[in-house]
Order: sequence, then structure tokens, then C-alpha cells
Amino acid sequence: MERSVFFISDGTGITAESFGQSLLAQFSGPGFRHNTLPYMDTPEKAIKALTLIRETQRQEVVQPIIFMTVLNEEVNRLLHTSGAYIIDLFATFLPGLEGELGSHPLYTVGKKRSTTRSDSYHRRIEAVQFALDNDDGARFRHYEKADIILLGASRSGKTPTCIYLGLQFGIFAANYPITEDDLDKGVRLPDVLKPYKERLFGLTINPVRLVGIRNERRPDSHYSSARQCQYEVRAVEQIYRQEQIRYIDTTEFSVEEIATRIMDQASLARRLK
Amino acid sequence: MERSVFFISDGTGITAESFGQSLLAQFSGPGFRHNTLPYMDTPEKAIKALTLIRETQRQEVVQPIIFMTVLNEEVNRLLHTSGAYIIDLFATFLPGLEGELGSHPLYTVGKKRSTTRSDSYHRRIEAVQFALDNDDGARFRHYEKADIILLGASRSGKTPTCIYLGLQFGIFAANYPITEDDLDKGVRLPDVLKPYKERLFGLTINPVRLVGIRNERRPDSHYSSARQCQYEVRAVEQIYRQEQIRYIDTTEFSVEEIATRIMDQASLARRLK
Repeated sequence: MERSVFFISDGTGITAESFGQSLLAQFSGPGFRHNTLPYMDTPEKAIKALTLIRETQRQEVVQPIIFMTVLNEEVNRLLHTSGAYIIDLFATFLPGLEGELGSHPLYTVGKKRSTTRSDSYHRRIEAVQFALDNDDGARFRHYEKADIILLGASRSGKTPTCIYLGLQFGIFAANYPITEDDLDKGVRLPDVLKPYKERLFGLTINPVRLVGIRNERRPDSHYSSARQCQYEVRAVEQIYRQEQIRYIDTTEFSVEEIATRIMDQASLARRLK
Repeated sequence: MERSVFFISDGTGITAESFGQSLLAQFSGPGFRHNTLPYMDTPEKAIKALTLIRETQRQEVVQPIIFMTVLNEEVNRLLHTSGAYIIDLFATFLPGLEGELGSHPLYTVGKKRSTTRSDSYHRRIEAVQFALDNDDGARFRHYEKADIILLGASRSGKTPTCIYLGLQFGIFAANYPITEDDLDKGVRLPDVLKPYKERLFGLTINPVRLVGIRNERRPDSHYSSARQCQYEVRAVEQIYRQEQIRYIDTTEFSVEEIATRIMDQASLARRLK
């Protein structure tokens, strides 16, 4: 039987979801029914949340689990009356950090340094815009501004990775799709990329997976045929090896994993403070 | 004096950064020097990390702080020899959860349910692609597939918000920029949006801020003039009120906050499990 899990926060709830899911992922079993309750910043809202929690308590045999990042004292107190199993990030760690840092916590919401409306915000928006503006092999003019340029066959994961690099790390990521037209000129690095060799990073993918992805876009086409996908993947990998371009196989990874591995392997510094 | 902080993980490090930054944000003061060490999954890498930590210990008066989400036992043990102040998410909470759930933790990395290569992955990629395909007022054909359609003046934050809704929540978010051309036809909802009224959500922004943002793009233009920005912002807000479209002022919010507030206010369900 599924067990209800609540991620409760007086902010966005993203931290509560992130650390809660990391912990829950360590347990196999019947699975969890997720509920995120963000912006829980007044006693009135907390009372509504309590009603929802009591509802699940009537329907389920076991107590729900609450992962919380709540600073508001009264909201906190109300949630602790629920009888649920509570994992409270702030209550657990703030007192120790207070001693270690020798200063009092502010107990104010939404102050996470990297996400407030500030220089960081502008950098991220710019970086996403950069990813969008440079998401097309036809425009080369901004490559000199790129922190990194992702290469790969069409649909190997370049675009979401570039956007994620921008949103999460403030990295300016361009991409260049290596197409059949490029390969018709020879299995070699397109000339336009040669001045930027230090910034190139390759993506590759299992050809069978690529067939599946391309079939969703253009079913039963030359583009999505097993033969064509296999040819393109082999050819781009050959280029990476010839030119000693670092590359990563995206088949088994999430967007976050692809992006953080690229950050790591290309020794890119995070651009957000 | 700044104090060094390490976010260490045998996965992407995103959870360690997220919960660590949430905790640190509760302390004002001299600030922290961030270091993220992801994919710390072998004793060899842990020894390199220790060298880096010892380096900061030689240079700084106070001990560094480590936020960790490390499952590898040996890596864990090595890091605990560092003498740093350690906040260990798994060691703190897994034993209690184990008791509560009555099952043993798997101690395997990167199993966070919402981010593995799976249905969720495809949904996110599709959702990002949807945001990109529908990031242009000229294409109306996919509005019927949208979970939500964001409206707003040019540069009020629609595009990054749509992408974030896709990446983080798997939401199909389209957007429609309300332009001067639209407003020339009258301060009213463009006809093309009328069939989708239930799905509309407005963004607005402080006009002074908008001037700044537009000036970065087209300095000293009609488009970025104070008069024009003020006119457009007033007009779109008037449309929202006339049509009773929910809206949010993005001026003081990060992309995450805008996106999670829209999820909350529009009662959108997360599309990722």
C-alpha cells in the first residue's frame, strides 16, 4: 500500500522535495503518494494543511511522513501536532550551525542566496536566453561568448542540457547539432567549430534509444531509421575520438546528471554565487 | 572573513547544495566560499577532496563546513576524518526513516525517483520542448495541449518560467507575449486566447525594472522607454482585471518562486512522479 508523504515549506518547497526525495529513494517498496504544500506561511494555511493530513490519516493505516522546511514558528508548532512522522530540516540542523557559526539564525523565508532576485537572477535569465539564442547550428556568432559548446547528433539531449546549465549554474552553453549534411562533407569536425576546440564537449547516446526518441518526432522516417541513427552515432563518436573531444553517453542519465557531469569533467566553475 | 563551505555528494550534489544553501541562508555575516564536489564515489576521489579541504584548513582560521549526501561508506568514513564541521543528511535521517518504514535503506546513488531516466525523463524533455515550441505568439496550434498559458509584456519573465515549469514539474507551459500590436487593437484579450481562458495566467512586473531589462536588449529604444514600459504594464494589468485572469508580479521573485507560486495559485498538479 502506498504511503502519503508531504513536503511542506513556507517557501517554494523545492528544498523540502529535493532532500525528502533523496531520502525516500533509499527505500524500495510500495511507493509514496507525494503532496507538496508550498508557501505555508500563516497559521490559517497550516490549519488547512492539518485538515488534509488528517484526511490521509483516516484513509491510511500508517502515519504520513512530513519533510519540512518551515521557519514560521506557529506553522511549525501546528504541524507538529499532526501525529505524522516528521523530518524537520531546520529544527535538526540550525541549532548546531548556530553554535558553530556563533551567530543567530534569521528565521526568514526565501533567502537562499542563489535564487533571490539579484545579480544571480540576471545571470540565470541571461544564460537561459543564451542557450535559446544559440540552440541552432545556423547561428555561429555567439560561440565566442560560450562557456561550453555541446556537440551531438539530433535528439541526443543537447537543448535541455544547455538550458539546465544556464538555469542551475549560470553557464553560457551553446550547442551544435552534427547533421547528415555535416557528415556528408566527411566524418570530421565542422570548420566553424575549429576555433573553439577547447570549449567543445560531445554527447552521444545508445542508437536504439535514439531510434525511439526520433520515432516520436518523425515516425518511420529516414531520420528515425535504425540504420541512420547507428550511422550518425558512430560518426560523431569517431569525430570525438579523432579530435580528442571529451564526451558523455547520455543514455542512462537524467538532465541534471548530464549537466553536473559536464560541469565536473570540463572543470567549469559555477557562475552563480 | 569568508568561511569555506563544501557540498559533497556521490551523486550530482544538487540536493547537498539545495539543503545546505537553505540552512546557510539563515545566517547573515561575512558570507561563504562555496565548493561543490559531485560524483565523490571512490576512496581515491575522497582522498583528493581531503587534500582540498586540508588546503582550506591551512589558510583559514575556522574549520570549513561540509554538507554531505554521500552513501559510499568508505568515502563517508574518509570525509569524517577531515576535522571539518559536518552536516550529514543521510546519517542523520536514514536510521529514523528505516525504523519508521520498517525496511532497510538501499544505499545506492542517484535513485531519486523524479530524475532517473524513465517516463519522468521523457515527460520533462517533452515539456521543455513544448515550452520552446510554444515560445512565440505567432504559433497558436499547440495551445490546446498546454497545461497553462502565460501572458505578459515582452521581457516580463515568461520564457524562463515556462522552461522551469517543464523541467521541474513536467508542466506543458505555453506563452503569449502581449505586444504593442495587440494593444493597438484595443486594451483587450487577443481573440486567439479566448478559447483557453481557463488556462491563462498573467505575469506583470514593475515598469522601472522592465525599463532596465529592456535597455539591456535594445538600449535607448521606444521599446525600452519608461513611457512605453509603463503603458504596456498598465494595459496588461487592465486586461487581467477585466477578464479576471489570475496574475503575479514577478519583480521580486526568482524563477523558482514564480513557477512554484503559479503551480500553487493555478492548482496545477505536478506531472512527475
